[in-house]
Parts: sequence; C-alpha cells; structure tokens
Amino acid sequence: MAGSAWGTLLTMTTWGESHGKGLGVVVDGCPAGLPLEEEDIQKYLDRRKPGQSRFATRRREGDQVEILSGIFQGKTTGTPISMVVKNTDQRSHDYSGIKDLYRPGHADYTFDEKYGFRDYRGGGRSSGRETVGRVAAGAIGAKILENLGVTVAAYTTSIGPVEIDRGRFDLEERFANSLCMPDARAAEEARAYLDRLMEEGDSSGGVAECVVDGLPAGVGEPVFEKLDARLAHAVMSIGAVKGVEIGDGFGAARSSGSLNNDSFVKGPDGRVAKADNHAGGILGGISDGGRIVARAAFKPTPSISRVQRTVNRQGQEVETVIKGRHDPIVVPRAVVVLETMTAFTVADMLLVSMSSRLDRIQEFFRR
Amino acid sequence: MAGSAWGTLLTMTTWGESHGKGLGVVVDGCPAGLPLEEEDIQKYLDRRKPGQSRFATRRREGDQVEILSGIFQGKTTGTPISMVVKNTDQRSHDYSGIKDLYRPGHADYTFDEKYGFRDYRGGGRSSGRETVGRVAAGAIGAKILENLGVTVAAYTTSIGPVEIDRGRFDLEERFANSLCMPDARAAEEARAYLDRLMEEGDSSGGVAECVVDGLPAGVGEPVFEKLDARLAHAVMSIGAVKGVEIGDGFGAARSSGSLNNDSFVKGPDGRVAKADNHAGGILGGISDGGRIVARAAFKPTPSISRVQRTVNRQGQEVETVIKGRHDPIVVPRAVVVLETMTAFTVADMLLVSMSSRLDRIQEFFRR
Amino acid sequence: MAGSAWGTLLTMTTWGESHGKGLGVVVDGCPAGLPLEEEDIQKYLDRRKPGQSRFATRRREGDQVEILSGIFQGKTTGTPISMVVKNTDQRSHDYSGIKDLYRPGHADYTFDEKYGFRDYRGGGRSSGRETVGRVAAGAIGAKILENLGVTVAAYTTSIGPVEIDRGRFDLEERFANSLCMPDARAAEEARAYLDRLMEEGDSSGGVAECVVDGLPAGVGEPVFEKLDARLAHAVMSIGAVKGVEIGDGFGAARSSGSLNNDSFVKGPDGRVAKADNHAGGILGGISDGGRIVARAAFKPTPSISRVQRTVNRQGQEVETVIKGRHDPIVVPRAVVVLETMTAFTVADMLLVSMSSRLDRIQEFFRR
Amino acid sequence: MAGSAWGTLLTMTTWGESHGKGLGVVVDGCPAGLPLEEEDIQKYLDRRKPGQSRFATRRREGDQVEILSGIFQGKTTGTPISMVVKNTDQRSHDYSGIKDLYRPGHADYTFDEKYGFRDYRGGGRSSGRETVGRVAAGAIGAKILENLGVTVAAYTTSIGPVEIDRGRFDLEERFANSLCMPDARAAEEARAYLDRLMEEGDSSGGVAECVVDGLPAGVGEPVFEKLDARLAHAVMSIGAVKGVEIGDGFGAARSSGSLNNDSFVKGPDGRVAKADNHAGGILGGISDGGRIVARAAFKPTPSISRVQRTVNRQGQEVETVIKGRHDPIVVPRAVVVLETMTAFTVADMLLVSMSSRLDRIQEFFRR
Repeated sequence: MAGSAWGTLLTMTTWGESHGKGLGVVVDGCPAGLPLEEEDIQKYLDRRKPGQSRFATRRREGDQVEILSGIFQGKTTGTPISMVVKNTDQRSHDYSGIKDLYRPGHADYTFDEKYGFRDYRGGGRSSGRETVGRVAAGAIGAKILENLGVTVAAYTTSIGPVEIDRGRFDLEERFANSLCMPDARAAEEARAYLDRLMEEGDSSGGVAECVVDGLPAGVGEPVFEKLDARLAHAVMSIGAVKGVEIGDGFGAARSSGSLNNDSFVKGPDGRVAKADNHAGGILGGISDGGRIVARAAFKPTPSISRVQRTVNRQGQEVETVIKGRHDPIVVPRAVVVLETMTAFTVADMLLVSMSSRLDRIQEFFRR
Repeated sequence: MAGSAWGTLLTMTTWGESHGKGLGVVVDGCPAGLPLEEEDIQKYLDRRKPGQSRFATRRREGDQVEILSGIFQGKTTGTPISMVVKNTDQRSHDYSGIKDLYRPGHADYTFDEKYGFRDYRGGGRSSGRETVGRVAAGAIGAKILENLGVTVAAYTTSIGPVEIDRGRFDLEERFANSLCMPDARAAEEARAYLDRLMEEGDSSGGVAECVVDGLPAGVGEPVFEKLDARLAHAVMSIGAVKGVEIGDGFGAARSSGSLNNDSFVKGPDGRVAKADNHAGGILGGISDGGRIVARAAFKPTPSISRVQRTVNRQGQEVETVIKGRHDPIVVPRAVVVLETMTAFTVADMLLVSMSSRLDRIQEFFRR
Repeated sequence: MAGSAWGTLLTMTTWGESHGKGLGVVVDGCPAGLPLEEEDIQKYLDRRKPGQSRFATRRREGDQVEILSGIFQGKTTGTPISMVVKNTDQRSHDYSGIKDLYRPGHADYTFDEKYGFRDYRGGGRSSGRETVGRVAAGAIGAKILENLGVTVAAYTTSIGPVEIDRGRFDLEERFANSLCMPDARAAEEARAYLDRLMEEGDSSGGVAECVVDGLPAGVGEPVFEKLDARLAHAVMSIGAVKGVEIGDGFGAARSSGSLNNDSFVKGPDGRVAKADNHAGGILGGISDGGRIVARAAFKPTPSISRVQRTVNRQGQEVETVIKGRHDPIVVPRAVVVLETMTAFTVADMLLVSMSSRLDRIQEFFRR
Repeated sequence: MAGSAWGTLLTMTTWGESHGKGLGVVVDGCPAGLPLEEEDIQKYLDRRKPGQSRFATRRREGDQVEILSGIFQGKTTGTPISMVVKNTDQRSHDYSGIKDLYRPGHADYTFDEKYGFRDYRGGGRSSGRETVGRVAAGAIGAKILENLGVTVAAYTTSIGPVEIDRGRFDLEERFANSLCMPDARAAEEARAYLDRLMEEGDSSGGVAECVVDGLPAGVGEPVFEKLDARLAHAVMSIGAVKGVEIGDGFGAARSSGSLNNDSFVKGPDGRVAKADNHAGGILGGISDGGRIVARAAFKPTPSISRVQRTVNRQGQEVETVIKGRHDPIVVPRAVVVLETMTAFTVADMLLVSMSSRLDRIQEFFRR
C-alpha cells in the first residue's frame, strides 16, 4: 500500500533507506510565493544530524539537502518540491551478523513477514534515517506557519526517570544542551543517568513535548480528522513512539471535571481566552486559539550492546550482541522530528480549515 | 472538509446530531459474502446505550439500528451498507441557557469559531451520540475480523485514581459490572469513588484498554500508515480522549532497552513468538503476530453540576451551571467505542496488507 | 474497496439499490451557512424522476428526499448532510427470468465475477436508480456554486443520429421538451426516431453537454487533479457513459493548431478573455475564466425487448427477452445527473483552489 | 493542493519542471519481490524521448533514469521507489519573449492566475516533460501486470484527418514507423500531411488507442471508482488530451441497443466470453474478462510558428511568434504516456480488487 505519504492539501511523500543512495521527500501542495531556500531546510536537518554529542551515533553524514524542483526565483511555485539528501557515509559493513536473525525491538521480523525479505543494511527503510524526509518536509510546514504568525517548538521533557522541573523551564536552554532539555539542571542529571546506562551497555526511553503558538481558533475537523487525532497519527508514526498525549493526557484520566475544565475568560485583548490549558488548546478536535500542547513517549533504543536472546530466519533460538553505532537515547535527535511533523500537520489542517464557512469563501472569491 | 470518513479500503462515513432526526453511518468496502443482520450491530449498540446504570445518562433511547442497503439474502453484497438509528427521546429542552454561552471543556466555542454558529441542541455533532455511527460500523469490522479468526476486546482499566489489579484480571467480569472493569474489586472501589464525586457535582476521567488477538504478522505499513499510527488516529478521534498508548506506552519512556526489548523465542508451534510484549504487538508499525494492546485516556465529563466561570457569545464573563442528564464518567460507555474503532481500523489495515507481496498476489490471481 | 465516495474537501458517499429500502447520500464538507431546504434538492430529483414522458420508464416513484442531518435553522452547519429517498414502488417482480442469466450490456456478469453473487432485483446497485444519491448531493454543489456566482446547465445535444442545430440553440427550450434538447425541431425529429426504435423493440444512445459559467480562472490542479481530469472521472462514472469530451474534444484531434488555439484578447471589462473557446475553458488543467464545456456519450439502453443471445450462470448459451419498464434512451433523464455531478466536482475543486497562493492565505487569516 | 499523486494502493507522485534540475517520481505501494532494474524503466522512457524523428523536437536529452531507493538485490522491497531523470539539455534560452505574455493554447495565463507567477522556462511544470515521471512510474505498473499475465499496448489511430485502416492493423508496425501507427500506409499518408502542416508553420491533433489483454473479470469498483472512470481520469490528466472513449465511445451514442449490446457466449475454454466488444471490456465499471479498449483525443500542439494574437501580463493585446523546438504533433510521443498511465491505473485497480470477496480473503489468510 501507499503508506509513505502524509497530508490532505499539503502532503509529503518520503522515500529512501539507511544504506541506499539517499533519502528524500516530495512536498506537494505548498502554496505559491513562499520564499524558500536550502538553508531553510538545512537548519532543521542539522538538528537531527548524528555526531553532535556523545549520546548520538558517531556516523558522520553531511546530510546536505538539495532542492530539485518547485522553486523559481527564490519562491515556491505551487508545484511539487523534491528534496534529496545523499547517503555519504556508507561503510561497507559486515551485515552477516544480522541479516539472518531478528533483532529484539527492531522491525526485522515484521518486515520479513510482510515482504518476504528485507533490506537488512542498517535497518533499511525502518532506520531512524527515514526521518530525514520528514524533517525536510516539516521545515517547509514550519516556514508556512511562520509566514502566518504561528510558531512551533519541541524539546525533551524527560529521559528515563529524569524529568524537567517546570519551574526552571527555559525554552532557549533547549539549544544549549545536547539533550534538548529546557532545564539545564535536569539535562545534567540526565547526562549522568545516560552515562551510567552506556557503561552497562543499555539504553533509555524518554518524552518530548511540542507546543504550537499563534494558531487561530477553528482548525481541525470535528469527527475523524480532529486536530488532535491527526497529531496523534503524525506523532505515533515516528519510529520508537509508543504514546501520545494532548494537554494533560493521561493526567486528565486521573483528574476530575472541576479541575480539568478550562474556564473561558475575557482575554486582555477583549477576545475569548482560557484561564487554564488542561485541554492542550483543542476542544472537540478543533483549536481553541490557545497554545497547542502535544507529548510523545519514546521507547529506549532497541540496539543495545548486551547479549540478547532471539530467533534466526531458520527458526532457531540464538544469542546476539548488536554491533555498530547507536544512540543510547533517541529523544534528543527525535525532538526536531516531533517539531517538524507537528508543524507540517498543523499547516495542512490550517489550509483545510479555510473552506469551513460560506461567508468567508464568498469574501475570498469576491476579490 | 470531509472529515467524517475513516478508512482506506474499508471505510465508514458517519453523520447525525444529538437532537436531529437520527444518526447513522455508511460502511463502504465491506467484502461480499459476510453474513450480516441487524442483531450483529445491535448487540454492540446496546453496550453503548444510555440508561444502563446509575453512572450513565438517564436519557432513554431505544437506539434501534436499521440496515437500509448492502445486504441481500442475509449476506453483504460488497456495496455500501447504510445504517440508521433514529433519535426518539428528544425532549423539547430549553436550550436558552447554553445557546449563547461557551460551556467549559465543551466544543461550543470552537464550533462557533469554525462555523460561525452551531447546532446547540445537546452538543449537536460534538455530542457523545456521534459515536452511534462509529459503533455500528465497527461492529461490521469486528464481524469481518471474527470471520478471519481475529478477536477484539476492550475494558476499563482505571477510573480516576482507581486502577484494576492485573493479578485479578478476569476478562468476562467486564460484562458483569456496569463500569466494564475486568476486576470486580476495583469496580467496587470505583463505584464508591464515583458516588462521592457525584455528590460533589463532579465527574471523573479514566482509562480503557483494547486487545486484539489472532492478528497475523505483517499488518500495518512502515512509515505514515503504521498500524499503531492508525490506531492512535482512530482512538484519539473519539471524543474526550486525550492520550493513547501502545504496549507499555509512557512506561516505555521510563524504561531501559534491556528491560523493554521483547526477546524472540521459538513458540510452542515452532513459529516465531515473543517472550514478552512490551511492544504491544507492533514493531516498526507492523503487527508481529502477538497480541495488540492499545490504551486510551479519557478526560472527565466536562458537564458537571457545579457553578463554572465562562464567557458568552457577547464576550461577557458569566457564571453557569449545566443542567441535563450527564454521565459522571464516559469510560464505561466509551469502551465499546474503543473496541469497535479498533476492530474497524484493524480490519481495514488487514485488507490493505494483502497487496504487499508479489508472490502472494500471483497466487491469488492464479485461481 | 471504498469506491462509493467522491470529492476531496466536499465529498459525497452514496448508497442504495434499486429494490432495497431506499437510496441516499451523505454530503460531507459542505461549508457552514448555506441556506438549504429539501426543496433545493427536490427540484433536481424531479428532473431525473421516471414517468415524465413516454420515453421514460413508467415506474412511479415519488422520489421524495428527506434531509436527516447537517441543517440547523435552515442553514448548513458544516457537518455531514445525510439524505434519503425511500423506494416506494417495488412491485414484487418475478426475477426468476434474470437472476440466473447475464443480460447483454448489463453488469450482471461482472458483479457475479467480482462479488460471487449479486442483488439481481432491478440491477441492484448497478441500476440507474443509483444516481438518486448523486443528484441529491450535486444539488448541494450547485447551490454552493450559485452562492458564488457560478451557474451550471446541461442538456441533450444528440439522440442517435439526430443532433441539435447550434444555430437554433435555445437553453430555455431544454425544459420545454421531454428530451431536454435546446432545439425544438431536433427534439421533434428525435421523438420520431425514438418512436420508430421503440416499435422495433430497440433503444438509442445519445450525447449530453454541460456548461459552467462564472467560474474564476485558477480552478484545477496542474497534474493529476486537472479540472478536466476530475470532470472526466466524474462523468465517466455515470452509468452508460462511454465517452467524455472537453471543449472541442475529438474534434480537436482532427484540427490544426492555428484553428484550435484560442487567442487571448482584452475583454470588454479590461480583463483577459478569449476570442474563441475550443479549449472548453480549461488550459493545462486549470480554468481560464471562460465557459467550461463538457460532453458525455451515453450508450443505448441495454434493456431492449428483442430476443438476445446470452449465457446463464451454469455457462449454457440461452436466448432471453428482457421484460420490465425501461427507457429507450437514458440521456434525457441523465442530463440532470451530468449537471449535478459537474456542479459538485467544480464546487469541490473551487474549495481546493483556495490554498494555492500564500498571499491570499495570509489575507484570509488576517481577518 | 496535493494534485501530483495518482493511485490508491499503488501510487505515483511526480515532480519536476522542464528547465529545472530534473524530473522524477516516487512510486509507493509496489509489491515486494518484483525483479526491477533501470533498464525496465529506460526502455519506456526511450519511447517518449525527443529527437527520434523529424516530427519530434530536436532537443536532445539522454533522459537516463536513476533508481534511488526501494530495490535490494535486484528486487523491489515494498518500500517507495524513487526515480530521477536529470535535465541535461538546458540551453540558456532567452525567455524574454514569453515570460510576460500568454501563449495561446498554453497554460501560461492559468498558471499566472492560479499561483500569482510562473516558472516560464519551457513551460515549467506544464511542459510535456512532466510526463517523464508518469512514464517511469507506469513502466513499473506494466512490469507488475506482466508478472500477472496482463499486457498493455498503445498506438496512434489517427493524425488530423488521417485514420488507420482496421483491416490493415498490424500491432508490430507501431514500432516500425515514427508515428507509432499500426498501419504503414496510414503512417505514410500522415507523414505527408504533417510535412504540409509544418511548411505552413502549423500543427496537428490526433488520436491514440490503448488495449489491455489478459485482465481478469472483476476489476473496477461499481460507482465512482469504475475502471473506466479511473482510466478517463488518468488519460484526461495527460496534457493536451481533450477527449476519452471506452470501447465504441461516441460511436455508441449514435448506435442502437440491438447493435451495441455484446452477446455473451460460451468461449472456447468453456468460460463466459463475448461475441463482440462494443463495451471495450468494461460493464458497470467492472472488467468483463475481455480486452479493455481506451482512446484519447489529443489537441494540436499549441506551439506553432505562425503569428498569433494574444495579451501580455500588462493586459495589452500583442502579436507573437513562438520560437523554439516543438513537435507538430504530440501523439507519437504521447503513445507511451497513454500506455504507461493505463498500465499503472489498471495495476492499482487490480490490487484494489483483491478485497472484494470474503471467501477469497479467508483463503488468502489461511496460508
């Protein structure tokens, strides 16, 4: 099936494998007239690039994006934008160790069952490198939003048991530490925790959060295409994500109505606002004009350097130790994936929301 | 936008409002030859019907389903199945209390912003009654799965702070208590908790879980249409859901790779199996042949009988007390919605998975 | 597969069989605020109603539409509009004559092959009555367009060998004769031709044309979702259609560039206009601001009262004479189907076109 | 909008402009295990390559395809196949002549209206070169079909007034003459006709036909996704196409039921067959097991070397003569586009048809 595309009016179609010729994406439906150059994309790709800290794989990819179409005289033309990132660091690995066995926590077994065989080099299409295309596309989503006054920001909120302290929250700090945590002290603790795990040949899970500001009320469709449902789909489609929350999420399940309901108030500008934001900016699947808050739970990196039990293609039980370059935690590099997938999804839904009212459509065409 | 449809090869398109003439759904793409009668649908609708316990609204709807098309001589013909449930208990409420103000936690404000006005009678399209169509459609999904050896079951795992004890887990018990909990003792505690909240005019959130057994490995597409991403979309699209987990979910974020990885083992039948199931039966977005586990966090019912602050359409701050029949907890009635949405989504993805391998397609057409 | 839905932002999902309980459609994505009542739909349904002339089946259906959802206080709410037309004239036919054999020119054989069996009563889902849902939905498309200054009109241009004379063209005349021809004299000739065919137990094909006026330039997407490609899809999906043309159609294939190119000129209002319209108002798949012209070729009604050779389900060659009420020509009743399918498709593409330019999107959200 | 993608389970997403860095396509949903190499694609691209005869533009592009992903060890992996063809012959044209005026018959004006500006170099995205991606993708569709015993072949049936003689029909001849006509004598006449037009600085339209053999009965969905409706959409989406016919097409509109109905007969192999094929192999939108016949009318190349009247961006009426390399007829090079678009569309619908019957689905999963 065609499961490599995402979006309704603004879509991305990603392609590529970890050890093939490269990875890329086609963005279709981008409105014409958006100023766009490779640097707009590159700055996001650089945030997911490996080799930036001791917690990220030491594979060195330049990850230089090239825009092949859809731009003329520095602006988007409304036609598809094709972007490519070539794979440059493909060491001729010896994959004999993994090609015939199923690594625990990986998609080796399920790919083999689904397709009859798999590209076993570095995880093929199920590699984390698959996100290159998402980030490149999402960067365009973010640029569209920026031009409409909407901003998106993601960061790490916990690594294993170490959580940020909301009292110390500092958004700028996320760029200052290699774990993307908006709390320097928590980042320090998390680093110590990760060092300990690495010594033990183990890995950690974690949580990342994404906030959207400036989104007008009215975005999202009331039933199956609720803004939160779309976001949940987008976020859960990121490899290693096992949970998604909007606003208070699972916390709301333990709460009561009197605590969880956000009272409406008259905002400083005279417009309707909310006293709290337990809902994460979405009511009935539609944005309420407040901050959108989404959270993703990432499982621990499945590639660990300990001995693990598994089964091979011949159905025999075997033991294995996974070699190669692997992050002990995916969250810091996944933060930009969460941010760009959110941006892209919100931008798409924003365009979709334009046709909800006849009076505004009439006004639009009256020009 | 057309946000009232769900699915790729097997689709549902729902319609209807709380206080209109009725609600319904069109199921398209149901394979021909499935034995289907109204009773197959009704038994699911009866599980979401109001008026079954003291924790559910006292509105009495027969909620009798009528199948209008797509069946001939007791079997599905492959053409669309249209189903209708008429609204019968539409007391001529006095809605003057809410039509001009925005109830906290409800979609009143966001509908008004999106559409310019709203059908304020009983929440209109954002009412919990919207799920009637989903459940009727999902019952067909469940029947398809049943004919392919796949079963789906959902139940309540927590209400407010009261959680089930996995050691006392008894799936059949979920039909024995009005809270759908598979643990009689937890159900008793939860009842006491809810009684207390109701006295205080308050409401509670909770969590429901859904398991799928018998699903073959290979279902789900590797990138954006991962089985878990689709389930997250489906589940988050249910009103009041604020969080979704697959397998260990947010627990995995606190865990380490050595604990979270499920070892592959040789199963009793000689096939590949897993020693654990932290992954919830999905690896790389594709079913691994084990049990699928999904969980949904529901927020507390926003309609509470306490005084709440809000704003009216004129932008003035006002106080309001919501009248009418409301559940203090939506989870028990939402359990069947979770179950049927899961069944429908899995059935659709199962059909989609048929075209993944050329050898099997060749075999299929060789007949 | 889910093939009963049509549209991107404005969708219709039709259901129902000739001899089931009824037929209907769910229209999703209709902008909120459109004044709509059953009469808006009924007037279109009345145009496709049987029993209006001696060339239409004598089956008498009231074909009364009922709107079940999506309207509040006389206006669309933005939520799905469900419409039903009940089947009332279902004589208990004796179908033993056709249930086991394959009528030439009908879909009996292909349905049996596809689904393993079929609802043989009156053609089931492949009956011309399937268009009831299309017309009801298309009436809403037409109403949306009307509110945006766009009008749509269809009529018969030929019946068998009898063609209208463009020199005598009178659009109002199409309502004055039972053949929907905008040329009274051609209608008279066609009537004589049909009378002769009926005497011989035979039937005729014909051509209908649809024009759209007032559509702004810029509607349609440049590659696969060209306005003409969408129209071709919509029109060819109408039962009995075997050919579609835009503008000069097959005539353009016989022409030369110097004759076929439409020169641009300065229009009376100072805007860009065209001297001719060989292109039928579409260039590169995008509307050019001129009149859209589409044409559909309908095959002769396959049900004829002559002896025909065929094969039965047991694979034996047999002879058959089809009984029942059948039109000797489908075109006059199909004209409204062509008109409404065109209106719906154009309305959808018009909404889709709103997101093509960043400057207009910025303006839209600046409000 | 995202209008650059085509297909349901098997999709293509094309990108690229005439004078950008290149053109390409991402094919998603190709079943795993299909042997595929660049040569499989190249042989189709070579058929649309310019510079092959005196009736085709003299622009010399190598049009070498490169496959960037989705293949492992010579077989498709089930993941997206990205293909690129670089633009190599981009002479630094002087576009000052056309960038500010609207060429008659071209999409210059409609692109400007839709997007606010356009990439005017060689037509940008509306160039005939856009078909490079379609052909590359369609070659994969053809290869899938070939592995399922289905063959597709297209050829020219008329150029201007010169039609092939069905009595002299020789399919292999289409590769022997530069006009792709399966009738050598007609090809000769057509060449003379084109020479005459070229001397006059004019161009011609023409018709191409495509046949599909070996397709099993049961492919196509009964209402909006009829096989013929999908084909009409696919074919009309090819630039310059103004008409589409299935089987007898517009001829059926002039015919009578007794002549147009195809009698069913017992075939030589004992299976159901048809005595004729006026229907073009499709009944009720579903393949009937016979040959599929589709036809496309192409308008004359709009670029002619005569003086034409038009309007510029400033709204002034001007005269223009189009310079550059242009075919006097697009049909011969479009034949392979028709063939590959048909192959791709049929392959997609074939996969979609697998889920129509419960008994076959049960059998499929019983393995």
